[in-house]
Amino acid sequence: MGDMRVAVFGAGSWGTTFAKVLADAGTSVVLWARRREVAEAIGERRENPDYLPGVTLPESLESTSDPRVALAGATDVVLAVPSQSLRHNLTAWRGLIDPSATLISLAKGVELGSLKRMSEVVTEVMGVPESQVAVVSGPNLAKEIAAGQPTASVIACTDHDRAVAVQKACTTGYFRPYTNTDVVGCELGGACKNVIALSCGMAGGLGFGDNTLATLITRGLAETARLGEVFGADPMTFAGLAGLGDLVATCSSPLSRNRSFGERLGRGETVAQAQAAAHGQVAEGVKSCSSIRELALRHGVEMPITEVVHRVCHDGFDPREMAGELIGRKTKPER
Amino acid sequence: MGDMRVAVFGAGSWGTTFAKVLADAGTSVVLWARRREVAEAIGERRENPDYLPGVTLPESLESTSDPRVALAGATDVVLAVPSQSLRHNLTAWRGLIDPSATLISLAKGVELGSLKRMSEVVTEVMGVPESQVAVVSGPNLAKEIAAGQPTASVIACTDHDRAVAVQKACTTGYFRPYTNTDVVGCELGGACKNVIALSCGMAGGLGFGDNTLATLITRGLAETARLGEVFGADPMTFAGLAGLGDLVATCSSPLSRNRSFGERLGRGETVAQAQAAAHGQVAEGVKSCSSIRELALRHGVEMPITEVVHRVCHDGFDPREMAGELIGRKTKPER
Repeated sequence: MGDMRVAVFGAGSWGTTFAKVLADAGTSVVLWARRREVAEAIGERRENPDYLPGVTLPESLESTSDPRVALAGATDVVLAVPSQSLRHNLTAWRGLIDPSATLISLAKGVELGSLKRMSEVVTEVMGVPESQVAVVSGPNLAKEIAAGQPTASVIACTDHDRAVAVQKACTTGYFRPYTNTDVVGCELGGACKNVIALSCGMAGGLGFGDNTLATLITRGLAETARLGEVFGADPMTFAGLAGLGDLVATCSSPLSRNRSFGERLGRGETVAQAQAAAHGQVAEGVKSCSSIRELALRHGVEMPITEVVHRVCHDGFDPREMAGELIGRKTKPER
Repeated sequence: MGDMRVAVFGAGSWGTTFAKVLADAGTSVVLWARRREVAEAIGERRENPDYLPGVTLPESLESTSDPRVALAGATDVVLAVPSQSLRHNLTAWRGLIDPSATLISLAKGVELGSLKRMSEVVTEVMGVPESQVAVVSGPNLAKEIAAGQPTASVIACTDHDRAVAVQKACTTGYFRPYTNTDVVGCELGGACKNVIALSCGMAGGLGFGDNTLATLITRGLAETARLGEVFGADPMTFAGLAGLGDLVATCSSPLSRNRSFGERLGRGETVAQAQAAAHGQVAEGVKSCSSIRELALRHGVEMPITEVVHRVCHDGFDPREMAGELIGRKTKPER
């Protein structure tokens, strides 16, 4: 890919997998891991034992725990850190990043407090125009991609040419990225799907089957699209891979952290118990449901599923009592 | 429900379940079964042992195998027979049906040869205006509804008041119907989803995971919407319960006959072997893929998933060879 060199920040399962995709596509790539032992394991054993055990990483994939090493000569910077720590991390790396670099966000969420999307956090921290920021989204369960299963994805950037450059850098026989200029729609689809996946998990934990799952996915996508409308998102984005596709993959898969977390809540565990079972990690949707709900309230958008998830996660409501809220609404026309 | 009396024709799992829903809603309902022993089992044992074993049917649900008895005084006729035999059956019953009765189709398919939707077959055979025909569609796996699990559904009729009357007749604590005037969109959504479910089953049988499932659902809904556009369907219908909702329920569920049939093909069985395993029945999508493909060809609509399903089911292609056709297309913008 000419003189393109990509630094991937964050060696979780998705960051590591995306770095593998880039390397498999023939792109020069270095993966930054916070912990030195992870960076070393990747360099020496060609494996990320914590987040992607059993997957052999390409020989060409470099790794480091030093941001200076990662960013030396980087033309593109992939941000694969948790959404709520993106601002803090990026601020620390800011001075090391080439001002003309393409910044590629893999983070899915809405920042608590500021209520900003990830690309907005990036433009704000870096002082770059939005045309310099791309986001990757789609039906992208990391472990399936790491196993080489065929997957489609979306590279969104307001600058189409920049999206095409990123697309070329990550196209492989098993990873098929499509371009899109609707960054807002792709980001909101990605953030809201974690919340909807929590609700699907709760329904499954309560013993409900696939009709309920399908109803939550359908109504969840509808409330996501209503929120998107306020911010000028293209409604068609939600019908595409970064909307429907990402949502269905996350809500259907037992590999999804948000769905699994929701299942525990549905079975009667508390948030603290579910968190303990998830090695101390809270699912992304548990945080995002608060910022998304706040965004919806501020703009007068009705998001009943997000509201229920918020009440269960933060106000101590029992999912069993909330089930009626979701399905027992008055009969009316579908729209 | 006043003097409404509903005759349900067809005691398969969905016909029996919908008759139960009507009875549970307080509506007077009689279920016609082709075989006398099924009608008698329902009357005497309150159970349909062949198609809904283990579910106790309401005392108020009448049953018969005599169409004259079923149709005496019927204000509404529910058609729950297989789509390819609807014309033949309805022609036989035509003279017994009140000319002003509301005709409600539960059948999902496109007729081979004529390439007509089920509501078109009904208006043609009965000589009634389309405003007299309603269709029921949505994420409606019969066994889950029969078990009393909460489900949303759609009653579509070009005559809104008639849709509302049907809606009232089947609203229960667990079954929530929404009205819609887009009959074309609801019917095409229902017909195409069986074909997409076959493709999802094939992918599962080939060992692919939830990214592939989500991609097939997303791209399958997109090709369904392209077909719908030609016939004036509302694009929003495909984003709703009768489009996305029905599709996700069918493609996700191990209860879906089409998905299970596709899985067998994906594992390398022939259509004949899969048919034998399904008690001699061919999945609906195996027939519909031919008529839908024909409809698409005639109107110049690109439906690559339907095309692949058709080739596997009718031209002897190996699903393993077809996988590349679905995911190996050239990279391009999403739309």
